[in-house]
Amino acid sequence: MRAMLGLMVASTLLAMAMPALAAEVTVLSAGRIHTMDASQPQAEAMAFDADGRILALGERETLFAKYPDAQPLDVGDATVVPGLIDAHGHVAGLGLTQMRADLVGATSKDEVLARLRAFAADLPEGAWLLGRGWDQNDWPERTFPTAADLDVAFPDRPVWLTRIDGHAGWANTAAMEAIDQDTRARLTQGDWQPDGGRIVRDAQGRATGIFVDGAMALVDAAMPPMDAATAQRALALGMQAAVEHGLTGVHDAGVSLQQLRGYQALADRGEMPLRVYAMADGDSEALAWLCENGVYAHPGGRLQMRTVKLYIDGALGSRGAAMIEDYSDDAGNRGLLLMSPKQMVDAAARAKDCGVQVATHAIGDRGNQVVLDAYEQVLGDDRGSDHRWRIEHAQILTEADIPRFAELGVIASMQPTHATSDMPWAADRVGSERIQWAYAWRKLRDAGGRLSLGSDFPVESVDPRLGLYAAATRTDAQGMPAGGWMPQEKLTAWEALRGFTSDAAWAGFAEDETGRLAVGRRADFVVLGQDPLAIDPAQLDELDVLATYVDGEAVYRRP
Amino acid sequence: MRAMLGLMVASTLLAMAMPALAAEVTVLSAGRIHTMDASQPQAEAMAFDADGRILALGERETLFAKYPDAQPLDVGDATVVPGLIDAHGHVAGLGLTQMRADLVGATSKDEVLARLRAFAADLPEGAWLLGRGWDQNDWPERTFPTAADLDVAFPDRPVWLTRIDGHAGWANTAAMEAIDQDTRARLTQGDWQPDGGRIVRDAQGRATGIFVDGAMALVDAAMPPMDAATAQRALALGMQAAVEHGLTGVHDAGVSLQQLRGYQALADRGEMPLRVYAMADGDSEALAWLCENGVYAHPGGRLQMRTVKLYIDGALGSRGAAMIEDYSDDAGNRGLLLMSPKQMVDAAARAKDCGVQVATHAIGDRGNQVVLDAYEQVLGDDRGSDHRWRIEHAQILTEADIPRFAELGVIASMQPTHATSDMPWAADRVGSERIQWAYAWRKLRDAGGRLSLGSDFPVESVDPRLGLYAAATRTDAQGMPAGGWMPQEKLTAWEALRGFTSDAAWAGFAEDETGRLAVGRRADFVVLGQDPLAIDPAQLDELDVLATYVDGEAVYRRP
Repeated sequence: MRAMLGLMVASTLLAMAMPALAAEVTVLSAGRIHTMDASQPQAEAMAFDADGRILALGERETLFAKYPDAQPLDVGDATVVPGLIDAHGHVAGLGLTQMRADLVGATSKDEVLARLRAFAADLPEGAWLLGRGWDQNDWPERTFPTAADLDVAFPDRPVWLTRIDGHAGWANTAAMEAIDQDTRARLTQGDWQPDGGRIVRDAQGRATGIFVDGAMALVDAAMPPMDAATAQRALALGMQAAVEHGLTGVHDAGVSLQQLRGYQALADRGEMPLRVYAMADGDSEALAWLCENGVYAHPGGRLQMRTVKLYIDGALGSRGAAMIEDYSDDAGNRGLLLMSPKQMVDAAARAKDCGVQVATHAIGDRGNQVVLDAYEQVLGDDRGSDHRWRIEHAQILTEADIPRFAELGVIASMQPTHATSDMPWAADRVGSERIQWAYAWRKLRDAGGRLSLGSDFPVESVDPRLGLYAAATRTDAQGMPAGGWMPQEKLTAWEALRGFTSDAAWAGFAEDETGRLAVGRRADFVVLGQDPLAIDPAQLDELDVLATYVDGEAVYRRP
Repeated sequence: MRAMLGLMVASTLLAMAMPALAAEVTVLSAGRIHTMDASQPQAEAMAFDADGRILALGERETLFAKYPDAQPLDVGDATVVPGLIDAHGHVAGLGLTQMRADLVGATSKDEVLARLRAFAADLPEGAWLLGRGWDQNDWPERTFPTAADLDVAFPDRPVWLTRIDGHAGWANTAAMEAIDQDTRARLTQGDWQPDGGRIVRDAQGRATGIFVDGAMALVDAAMPPMDAATAQRALALGMQAAVEHGLTGVHDAGVSLQQLRGYQALADRGEMPLRVYAMADGDSEALAWLCENGVYAHPGGRLQMRTVKLYIDGALGSRGAAMIEDYSDDAGNRGLLLMSPKQMVDAAARAKDCGVQVATHAIGDRGNQVVLDAYEQVLGDDRGSDHRWRIEHAQILTEADIPRFAELGVIASMQPTHATSDMPWAADRVGSERIQWAYAWRKLRDAGGRLSLGSDFPVESVDPRLGLYAAATRTDAQGMPAGGWMPQEKLTAWEALRGFTSDAAWAGFAEDETGRLAVGRRADFVVLGQDPLAIDPAQLDELDVLATYVDGEAVYRRP
């Protein structure tokens, strides 16, 4: 286990782990330990062995008496909770956001260029330079920049920079030259525009380097596929960001076979700072690989794959979620199914035959209904089995479908911050009647359903404190609307914590290993400056994450 | 409806009601109205007619436009919620506590006498003078007082005063003379002592007037039965205390036929400031009356009786609750059933035959099991009917019995403050294993059960803010233990409010009238200084109750 401590996790962490190396047993003592284990919900101290297995929980004096030679680890009055598990995130996507130059707040093109030059210093030759966050309204000239502004500094390296709002991109000439030949010909002259997008052209009809909305895909498509080293770096950066926020586990909701290879390489080298529960992305090669090779678990204990991630529909914001009736703000539009009901049944049946867990993205009420119907049909008499099939998001439901989660044993894998991000416009999309069955955490729980909670990072922040806060307040960062949006759906802080610990572990077949602090389980825990069950729920987003431990080792300590 | 405004509710309230008298329609506007009605959870304004029926809810401007001649009732930025309903209280008992002289904090016997004289001035000649709260440790002499101390001031009127801790009483000679002749003979000489109590005697063996614990019953038994006027006064005082705390309804958990007559007299005279849902006390004359006369509803709309209150066992503190296994702190003791399982079945069957709702006091896990078994047997195939049978307290349950509430459609009528009052010693009584299924609000809700909430006043305070606070924090008034006792059982503020409004109304077959603010329902509401859904739950006990309205009339306004 010690060998797994990542090289990438830097020498400071290695140094932190050293004391534990010297002793067979460590006794952690804290202001309070919330174990999330019903038989012993609170403790003052916890002993774990050199492999990171929990030996005992109880009173401080009892444990120090029982293990007189133990290495003490006293965190003072801090609160310890089980390591947080994000049941739905995208690790590589999170890492990639950190592999882009940060241009937010740059007050001139010169500052943008200075930041880009500094960022490029670490990049391999020829690699694309990606960035995000520029805003010409922050610059003196307040006009869109052009490719030429970048070409002087980067004549050969492709540069592709997303605007602050994500709705425009700024390419240099090298990037535009990477676009396929036929398209490129249409960029140099004429007035062709792609569907749902706009190429900004100069008086001569030449693309200036600014691509709006749907036109951005032209440049995106020109990027070379990621090489293995870059992919691994993205995974490593994503995992590092996760542990810095108190996560000890992530369910990676859509992993290609290439990404799995990347994870495996990291795991082989002992460079996984947390546990990743990978879902094979789509009904394709990763599922085929799973069916052929069986449920996968890396011997180091930090990487697993036994799940296929399917997608039944799109998102609510863009009206791509499949609805039974028209969108309230777009008559005639009911969104779109990405798989037919029959395709959904076929895919679930294949997964069942291989003993694979199914986790399907479903946002709209029709999307959710089609998935529940398919699960019901495929599971048949086996619905009572330990299948743990999941619906990811489960955002808009019909009243009649809410109890089906419990009836079919389907886990609602939900993201509290989606509710608070969507609340300004969600009721516009579905109207005041259907919104009653949307983001309906409490109704699902009242109907006997089980919630595993996550963030969908990088769509939302990786910070699980924001998820706990959203779950318990249903307000935005400013505490609005006062009292919370649809306050009847709020969770208690304890329930929110449960969703990010024991119920997330359960959704990943890991309840015997993680999610609770109990004898025989893993010493995966977080040290918090405050007690999340005692503070005002409105302060949950300000919890201080002091340290994150996986297998009894510190994988993060606040500097 | 106007005529119902109680004479006893004093002229100030009558004055407050006057504006509404002048207009057909009133439009209330507030900072926010939490309706507890899913189809329109929030509003800025609410219109109701002269009968106190809600006409409309919505935006301020819309309602004032719709009812241009309406009487405006603007409560500024205050928050309006449905009138709170205590689903389990004892109105006469609460009133009686106010009919006793308050002796708390008196620093001398002289001060006690002065307070008694002032209090007696309002009492009819010959009526017993009752008081509570004396503590000889607050007096210079620090010794127990005697009957003689009272006899000078009260030579003829019986006086009976309970010590601050409730464990001793102080009688004057007139009170002792009211004790039955045989017992009195044993008070004047000898050394006889009753079971579980002590008569304090002087050197000659004469009772001094101090009766400890079990001996207090000797004096209690000597008191004359309450006359009708006194009984009505107790009810009136109890109801008045209730509305001053934001209650618009009480389920009176045990009403004798005599008490019902008292309520009826008050209702006939329009002196019910709130709605009382009376439960016939025990399987006796009140139930017989109900069976004979049918479900009772006073035409004024504020008094109903359709329920029989049964008692299966005692209380946990005194180890009278019936347990399946021994008390953890009293080997060999399993408490006591007050009715045999067969008696319980027979009583429930009689109630069912009469169409009467059953509400049974059950504290211990055996008590609850016997009741659930009886309900199951008696309801049989009718368990799915709209019976709304209840268990009062439902305090200690087995894991297996928790889902039976939902399966049988049985309401758990629980008192959040009982949990926080009992938490210092409840685990001593039942041990760390059984305590997991005690006061288990969340487990009951997770299993599909419905909670109606109350206080059991005067055992606990009538103040429903304390119930909301206890439900959402599981802490005592000082916020201890930090994070709450068994925090997994906490309710959200919204759920706590639901228990005291819509679910309490449902438990009283009143969901079409009260519990929510919606068109056609009663304008029973409370005006609060803060938004209970927006504040830190730890501040729920400090909500300012600004006014209480029943049928659109102010029955209380904070001075």
